Amino acid sequence: MNLLLLHPDQRLDEHRWRLDPRQAGHVRTVLGLTEGAPCRAGLLNGPLGEGRIESIDNNEIVLSFKAISHPPPPLGLNLLLALPRPKMLKRLLIDAASLGIKRIVLVNAWKVDKSYWRTPTLKADLLREKLLLGLEQAGDTVLPELLLAPRFRPFVEDDLDAWAGAGPRFLAQPGDHPALPHELDEPATLAIGPEGGWTPFEVEMLQEHGFRAHRFGTRILRVETALPALVGALMRLP
Amino acid sequence: MNLLLLHPDQRLDEHRWRLDPRQAGHVRTVLGLTEGAPCRAGLLNGPLGEGRIESIDNNEIVLSFKAISHPPPPLGLNLLLALPRPKMLKRLLIDAASLGIKRIVLVNAWKVDKSYWRTPTLKADLLREKLLLGLEQAGDTVLPELLLAPRFRPFVEDDLDAWAGAGPRFLAQPGDHPALPHELDEPATLAIGPEGGWTPFEVEMLQEHGFRAHRFGTRILRVETALPALVGALMRLP
Repeated sequence: MNLLLLHPDQRLDEHRWRLDPRQAGHVRTVLGLTEGAPCRAGLLNGPLGEGRIESIDNNEIVLSFKAISHPPPPLGLNLLLALPRPKMLKRLLIDAASLGIKRIVLVNAWKVDKSYWRTPTLKADLLREKLLLGLEQAGDTVLPELLLAPRFRPFVEDDLDAWAGAGPRFLAQPGDHPALPHELDEPATLAIGPEGGWTPFEVEMLQEHGFRAHRFGTRILRVETALPALVGALMRLP
Repeated sequence: MNLLLLHPDQRLDEHRWRLDPRQAGHVRTVLGLTEGAPCRAGLLNGPLGEGRIESIDNNEIVLSFKAISHPPPPLGLNLLLALPRPKMLKRLLIDAASLGIKRIVLVNAWKVDKSYWRTPTLKADLLREKLLLGLEQAGDTVLPELLLAPRFRPFVEDDLDAWAGAGPRFLAQPGDHPALPHELDEPATLAIGPEGGWTPFEVEMLQEHGFRAHRFGTRILRVETALPALVGALMRLP
């Protein structure tokens, strides 16, 4: 946690915020702060700034906050991600948020185990929690938009174009494709398939909707390794 | 496991190899192969090729192997990594090996918890096991060289130059530094600090030994996110 990210429901009055139990625990046991101490804080979807410990009363910690700067600029990359298994999903959401990705859609694919769509991990508050962890890690305040698309074809045919917008669309795929470009200077969309890859039908549908297949080395990477590696290659991190 | 990686001590005769219990379990329960079936295999530090299930006798599976191709080319990047906490170390070794890194040194740093040097994770066979998992993931056979340097200064002063070799040396560091270059066309060395970063003294020592500090975005990334992102940015994956 590199940032105390303050939510609207924690606000007590114009300048004071009550830390939630996790934040209070972090302030006491990791940071070891006492009354009067400054710390890095930010308002959810708002500015970064300086917090100051106003009072510590048993488990209740009250913080004052002064806005100082904007959050870091977003990474101009939309992520279309085949729904991974639950444990991996948690990590991927933290990673995606910490890398600055602001638009994520979790889509179905042929090789996605159908049970993944029924896990408790997909509850909105748990997904949001992982994204918040990523923001706290990165020192960012802007919550990514996360969309679930449990049906691949309707999403690709009806919603993808509006969702992905104007920039180029990339698909990392083994085979005789051009190498992935580096350091794009425009927003883009990246599709990452399930373990085992997209089916030829899925690749074809994505290509019909503007995705270009590129190879990204010859080694087979785990999705959680591939995501940051692809982001690092495609984009210049802001 | 995208590859059955065969070790010299599994060899029965010129063409036949006995799978170890983990590989045998994978062949039976994940791949569901029966006698005569082909599968992807490779010889440790040797060629890739095709395996064929010769016999399945209770838990003992014998494979024949035919060499077909070279393993993928190495990634020309040496990794100097401040020793991370044990759980993270496991993942980082798998990731580093799967990305094709072939030279890794785990060094001490001021902000490395001293207890990390005493964990069972640092036993040679456990370190090797994680590297092998990375190779199996990536479809590679060439085991990375892994060095432990529990004393930072003597390593940097006495051994670093010979270890790192001729290519450029990079240090990702927050601050007013030039942006990290992309797509190097030569071998290089990358230093990744501990959680909390290198101390100014450590940065200075590394700079005196040829490392150039570069910024890599403004967000603070976990080491396990930063490693693949930095590799993806710096190198074109072979």
